[in-house]
Amino acid sequence: MKDQLLYEGKAKQVFTVQDDENALVLSYKNDATAFNGEKKAEFQGKGRYNNLISARVFDHLKKHGVPSHFKKALNDTEQLVEKTTIIPLEVIVRNVAAGSLVRRIGISEKTELNPPVIEFCYKNDELGDPLINDDHALLLTDTSGDELDQIKQMALTVNQRLQILFQEVDLQLVDFKLEFGRNAAGEIVLSDEVSPDTCRLWDVKTGEKMDKDVFREDLGDLMTVYETILQRLEALS
Amino acid sequence: MKDQLLYEGKAKQVFTVQDDENALVLSYKNDATAFNGEKKAEFQGKGRYNNLISARVFDHLKKHGVPSHFKKALNDTEQLVEKTTIIPLEVIVRNVAAGSLVRRIGISEKTELNPPVIEFCYKNDELGDPLINDDHALLLTDTSGDELDQIKQMALTVNQRLQILFQEVDLQLVDFKLEFGRNAAGEIVLSDEVSPDTCRLWDVKTGEKMDKDVFREDLGDLMTVYETILQRLEALS
Repeated sequence: MKDQLLYEGKAKQVFTVQDDENALVLSYKNDATAFNGEKKAEFQGKGRYNNLISARVFDHLKKHGVPSHFKKALNDTEQLVEKTTIIPLEVIVRNVAAGSLVRRIGISEKTELNPPVIEFCYKNDELGDPLINDDHALLLTDTSGDELDQIKQMALTVNQRLQILFQEVDLQLVDFKLEFGRNAAGEIVLSDEVSPDTCRLWDVKTGEKMDKDVFREDLGDLMTVYETILQRLEALS
Repeated sequence: MKDQLLYEGKAKQVFTVQDDENALVLSYKNDATAFNGEKKAEFQGKGRYNNLISARVFDHLKKHGVPSHFKKALNDTEQLVEKTTIIPLEVIVRNVAAGSLVRRIGISEKTELNPPVIEFCYKNDELGDPLINDDHALLLTDTSGDELDQIKQMALTVNQRLQILFQEVDLQLVDFKLEFGRNAAGEIVLSDEVSPDTCRLWDVKTGEKMDKDVFREDLGDLMTVYETILQRLEALS
């Protein structure tokens, strides 16, 4: 089914699809990177966990009316998606203060954020994916002010759905990063992935970190954590 | 007239006023600081230039209906203002790309920004006055979303007026920083100062920098530059 390698990112390869110019195959890699690529490692099974977790999350969101690029998982490490042009924004939704927010504004870690805080970072490795505001986003992307509002609204809807979903498997959704793309019809849809690579998830009962922070901070065996998340989600259905 | 020293900042002292608890005296210092206080120097006459330039600018803005804390210049280095509680935001308006924006988003210096870009930085020396977005500002200040919009609108009005004013004296208003405060009646008014310390001004004819960048980048005699600006503004009236 997959044809040419179109692009290789830090966590995924993107392939064209034979006989369907509006589809792509995402192939999840076993590589883990952190701190803008400064820390790197390979974990056997990581591509499978992220592919299967992200597929479940996107399926769940689709059932609740969130438009996305996701079509279906093809196998353990690959999924078929609609081709989109990625808008170069990392859209971050925060329910609890952690990570860069704590360092930036001096707020205490674990402070509850209600309403949630939304941030845009400019997807640019060379610049270190800097935080930007709406005026910068209008300058740097082809989105309108109304479209930025639409993206924020979609991010809040995703947040509501994912808070409930993860709560059901005893995980607190602390924060997460989304990406959006524009499809052939010009519509803005959720793209990229939702996985423990792109979310902060804390175990509701133990408070333990259940996401890529385990790798960033050398807290234990990353794959045991990812496996636990997949198993909990699989037990739901 | 002035009573107790209430607060001393990097560029000004703030005094209470005898028999008027809703007024303050601002006393402009000769100190120059840059790079979050890392570079320091004293310039004879700087307090006078900034006091007289800022007084002229606030007078001009008052005539055009911009509500501010400014009452009147008292002498060469002091002015009487309405007491306000400063909202801890640096409100930056950019007409041309320069300084931190160029470093942050990788845009070329001198790129024209139309519409202007507005930024909020959180006034916090310890954190290095970080760029924040509207959600952060709501979290860190006592302002509402409507008040943030009002502040942006006021900043754009100030920008329109100052672009015209400085154009008349052959200066291009590249960018500038404003601060806003809340007065006893709860109203948000323009506060602090507008001077070559807080604006980037480029000479229309020569392209030379005519502001604190002369100090930041060791480009020449800072006080000659500040005197030129005051003289050009005085020649207007």
